[in-house]
Amino acid sequence: MKLDLSLYVLIDPDQTFGFDPVALARAAASGGATVIQLRDKGGAIRRTIALAAALKAALAPMGVPLLVNDRVDIAAAAGADGVHLGQDDIEPALARRLLGPRAIIGQTVKSAAHVAAVPLGAVDYVAVGGVFATLSKTNPDPPLGLGGLAARIAELRARKAALPIAAIAGIDAANAGSVIAAGADGVALISAIAKASDPAAAAAAVRRAVDRARETAP
Amino acid sequence: MKLDLSLYVLIDPDQTFGFDPVALARAAASGGATVIQLRDKGGAIRRTIALAAALKAALAPMGVPLLVNDRVDIAAAAGADGVHLGQDDIEPALARRLLGPRAIIGQTVKSAAHVAAVPLGAVDYVAVGGVFATLSKTNPDPPLGLGGLAARIAELRARKAALPIAAIAGIDAANAGSVIAAGADGVALISAIAKASDPAAAAAAVRRAVDRARETAP
Repeated sequence: MKLDLSLYVLIDPDQTFGFDPVALARAAASGGATVIQLRDKGGAIRRTIALAAALKAALAPMGVPLLVNDRVDIAAAAGADGVHLGQDDIEPALARRLLGPRAIIGQTVKSAAHVAAVPLGAVDYVAVGGVFATLSKTNPDPPLGLGGLAARIAELRARKAALPIAAIAGIDAANAGSVIAAGADGVALISAIAKASDPAAAAAAVRRAVDRARETAP
Repeated sequence: MKLDLSLYVLIDPDQTFGFDPVALARAAASGGATVIQLRDKGGAIRRTIALAAALKAALAPMGVPLLVNDRVDIAAAAGADGVHLGQDDIEPALARRLLGPRAIIGQTVKSAAHVAAVPLGAVDYVAVGGVFATLSKTNPDPPLGLGGLAARIAELRARKAALPIAAIAGIDAANAGSVIAAGADGVALISAIAKASDPAAAAAAVRRAVDRARETAP
């Protein structure tokens, strides 16, 4: 499945603010989300598999890939399109071995050391973050800011020019353009859409900000 | 690796009663354990992978297979010999697909419905339990007892004669013989060895009870 990081929306069933997670994902996709990730840290595994399968079924007709946070086994069980791996998760190379060459595998990086360690042969994209302060996740260290984001992107580009890069944490329609201007290919977010009264409209607003910033980028 | 369930020892790093988990596994194997399973429910994934890899390195020269509880991804990452799956874990057929034909895959069953649902083409062995009351795990429903164990074994034998069967929960040197007499091929246990002052001697005592009961079995 073609990978477009323009608007990468995370669905956390414990942070849907009253929405059904599948309805929320569908709304995000209809508003222009290009990737959906299921992040279900607290769920019993069979609940997570069922939810991932339901998301995959909802998103497949819309042509939007579904990734699963952390768990290769859940991704495989649900027929998801791939996994997103944090620095404390399993090695991307192992995920690649288990999921095969067609899976989409992404990894989060925050520090220069993380960038240096990215296994370029095993990952399809990188998420850089946390860029701004976020309410959706407890991040122990300070946000990177736009300067830190640009530095990580430069380090990644120095290693491999073509790898797509998403920025994550604290991004919304108001600051999405600045993130794209800093060099990111797209934005990853959760609460800017889940907390909106109209998630499809909220997704469309962020997507417009991304597209507009990209048009005006040098 | 040949599968012999005679003495199947679970290592839980949170229930080693002061022992180093690798030293405990090595002691169990030297006392006659034929399978070791790592059950690390609470661990951060990279800690669990590191522990599984250390156990595998310690056990490989002794010819004792290492299985990992629940997590196919951890088993693959650590180069373990297989996984043990509970009723709430991923489907054995998926584990088989991810780990390949040579992996050892086991499943726990308690009820007749579980036995009827065992995917015989995907599992290498079955653990029946909880047979007796145990302190090592919170089991919401009452123990099977020897009668229940014999019933599950009969139901399994009716489906496929050759599948090896271990009994689990509350087993020690004193009651291991009764479990073998009820038809189990081996015993799976944790605290009878981890709580002993001399785990190798404790393992040897259980192993002798198993071997003796098997000799006198009809």
